[in-house]
Amino acid sequence: MSTVQTDQLEKINIPKSELPRIVIIGGGFAGLRFVKNIDSKKYQVVLLDRYNYHTFQPLLYQVATAGLEPDSIAGPLRKTFHHKKNFYFRMASAKNVNPVDKIIETNIGQLSYDHLVLACGSITNFFNNEEFEQRAFPLKQLPHALNLRSQILQNFEKAVLKNDENEVQRLMNYVIVGGGPTGVEVAGALGELKKQVLPKDFPELNLNKMQIYLIEGQDRLLGGMSQKSSEKAFGYLKKFDVNLYVGKIVESFDGETVVLNDGMRIPSETLIWAAGVNGNALTGMDTTLTRDNRYQVDEYSQVKGFDEVYAVGDVASMQSEELKRGHPMLAPVATQQAGLLAKNLNKGMEKTNWKAFKYVDKGTMATVGRNKAVTEIFGKLKYGGFLAWLTWMFVHLVLIVEFRNKLVIMSNWVWNYFTYDRGTRLIIRPFVKKKKKHVEQAEEMPV
Amino acid sequence: MSTVQTDQLEKINIPKSELPRIVIIGGGFAGLRFVKNIDSKKYQVVLLDRYNYHTFQPLLYQVATAGLEPDSIAGPLRKTFHHKKNFYFRMASAKNVNPVDKIIETNIGQLSYDHLVLACGSITNFFNNEEFEQRAFPLKQLPHALNLRSQILQNFEKAVLKNDENEVQRLMNYVIVGGGPTGVEVAGALGELKKQVLPKDFPELNLNKMQIYLIEGQDRLLGGMSQKSSEKAFGYLKKFDVNLYVGKIVESFDGETVVLNDGMRIPSETLIWAAGVNGNALTGMDTTLTRDNRYQVDEYSQVKGFDEVYAVGDVASMQSEELKRGHPMLAPVATQQAGLLAKNLNKGMEKTNWKAFKYVDKGTMATVGRNKAVTEIFGKLKYGGFLAWLTWMFVHLVLIVEFRNKLVIMSNWVWNYFTYDRGTRLIIRPFVKKKKKHVEQAEEMPV
Repeated sequence: MSTVQTDQLEKINIPKSELPRIVIIGGGFAGLRFVKNIDSKKYQVVLLDRYNYHTFQPLLYQVATAGLEPDSIAGPLRKTFHHKKNFYFRMASAKNVNPVDKIIETNIGQLSYDHLVLACGSITNFFNNEEFEQRAFPLKQLPHALNLRSQILQNFEKAVLKNDENEVQRLMNYVIVGGGPTGVEVAGALGELKKQVLPKDFPELNLNKMQIYLIEGQDRLLGGMSQKSSEKAFGYLKKFDVNLYVGKIVESFDGETVVLNDGMRIPSETLIWAAGVNGNALTGMDTTLTRDNRYQVDEYSQVKGFDEVYAVGDVASMQSEELKRGHPMLAPVATQQAGLLAKNLNKGMEKTNWKAFKYVDKGTMATVGRNKAVTEIFGKLKYGGFLAWLTWMFVHLVLIVEFRNKLVIMSNWVWNYFTYDRGTRLIIRPFVKKKKKHVEQAEEMPV
Repeated sequence: MSTVQTDQLEKINIPKSELPRIVIIGGGFAGLRFVKNIDSKKYQVVLLDRYNYHTFQPLLYQVATAGLEPDSIAGPLRKTFHHKKNFYFRMASAKNVNPVDKIIETNIGQLSYDHLVLACGSITNFFNNEEFEQRAFPLKQLPHALNLRSQILQNFEKAVLKNDENEVQRLMNYVIVGGGPTGVEVAGALGELKKQVLPKDFPELNLNKMQIYLIEGQDRLLGGMSQKSSEKAFGYLKKFDVNLYVGKIVESFDGETVVLNDGMRIPSETLIWAAGVNGNALTGMDTTLTRDNRYQVDEYSQVKGFDEVYAVGDVASMQSEELKRGHPMLAPVATQQAGLLAKNLNKGMEKTNWKAFKYVDKGTMATVGRNKAVTEIFGKLKYGGFLAWLTWMFVHLVLIVEFRNKLVIMSNWVWNYFTYDRGTRLIIRPFVKKKKKHVEQAEEMPV
């Protein structure tokens, strides 16, 4: 039944099994839920991730703005699955799928599979612009968040050394591209730093000079939410003196000046890129890919044209009459797809027993700062302000994987709330502009 | 009164003042205490440090062994001195003192001083052995601790990929040089990882194979404490199956094998260097330096032969009839010296009013793991076991600077105690063997 080839097995060193092997690529929301739900009495389960931890991405912006320690939003993957039998984790960066021989190629060797679950998530979409790719700050992984944190703090350390007004202003200007939840949340968090934290740290600087620019190409913020929520978020950000530009596009960034499509020039050393993502598909099955680099899947998450290959979460595009471009790339879609796929696979290969996927939209939300958030529950109940902010906090605490982390995060939030402070403004690894791209350092790991 | 020269001021950008300027080099225990105690109505106070945070060094080994998050043992220096008037912090790496012109040279420019307080601490002493400097892991700064944490976790991720018994053993052997408090604490913490944490993470590996070696050149551990405490610590480490070798010296390490002076060869990829430190003196006042690179100071902490230059803490050697090599390099010595110097300077320059330094030894302690520590209070009260361990925890919590950090650390410790777990085993920045030395990355920061 298994097509495992001994010589290829040896590198990644997974023992042979009588059971068919399922290989899952990626330990994000989808991968995590899939491994939890899959029955390891029926399958040998192998999880690959280039990091040894799961990242709770919705809170990355708080790490980047010195509100949370990086360790508090990451859960070690091996620990999460202590009690899973017949489970193997390998820290590996998957590169290519060979669907004919049913082999996955990684930086530490090849591995054969009986079933493959692609849960590789998404990567920042720089729209093939090398300049942005080299110079803008993405915010998808913990090293990105730490780079941005270092950059922000270094900018202010440099600003106190300058007498030239223009140089100071350039260091104190922050431009965020993309008015989705990430862009809105980063803008709000920078606004809090400006009003509450940095003036005490840098009494020598006039923090009123710090300017935050949020640039959105569409005509409103939070395009995935209602018009009303958009307007509320707009109002909240205005209170933080965020400069909001909708219907505008960033055209270029030479590391010192951001230029918009209407000719406006913003002097800034820091361009934060929250303008969208593409699927993080591997090479080898290119015919099934959509324009945004996601695998086309049917309603059972099976990749079209490839038996025994499945894709779930951001990297999957489950298109239908209503959803011409698939579901939005959101954590709840990922966990629901992955959970259902695992349950279907637990029933065996007879697809007649399988259930088709239907997304249950429990709601969306975004926070702008203390006491300020917008929340939409079941697409109906829409509210903002303090109650929305409490909901936001509660939901994020419930969702985060590790109990230990909940404790640390709650301590931090309680502390931040009552002291108007942020505890973790440390430049532990200074950000040095020299790498060509924001290379994922894990891939450089010698094996 | 002030000898400030305008052209030199401009780079570091400290405003002119009518008051004499005190420049303090280093935000460690000594620098922190000095700034707290100095009267900034009488002096303009400038603190330089290459990091923007204070490191609580006694707990570095817990960061290195995945017990605490790095952020919890670091306090942002600007935040610590929010309420200090007439105080300036600059993130700068001091290089050279020009005592004739009263100028300090740094990586971001020059700064003139009226009084200079050298609180630069100590650096790892590799005994001029390039091999150790390149390949061994020091443990003096947060980036060191994070490198070691990544190395340990990467070793185990690599070990699961190997079938060769020798390769696996080499990845699972840890050699610690130096049986002082740091060496003993690292050995104990690795012992806990071996017994309680790693077996659950790596069920594929036989963790009994993991071997911890502690090598001490003298004839007993904890040379600064009593014979009885030595023996207790020895007994505790034996319970963790630590291989203890006293009276032996590490002769070479090629990255794969540690060779001792009696010819013993230990295959290992990881040599942890806790074998001692030297003073971290700057260049420019070399005539006053001791063999271990500390400034010779009188009982008022004044550097011999240089008016208006003071040294406190590890970098100062206050020699006397009883103390031929000065005081031991310990945090309590540093804080007491720095506190007294500030009080003396607050009285003015008339040294007749100044008080001479006398060290009050409140005690020393070292912990070996849960419920196990040795404590000596006022050189008399000596005890071990659970009570000593509680004392150790209490004293460290009281001493750590930030209240916020206390909360996070206590949460972690309570969690670790009841779950036999360590929360932060994340490879966030993989350690890559490629740098010639363990370069302090802060110095690479572009300014």
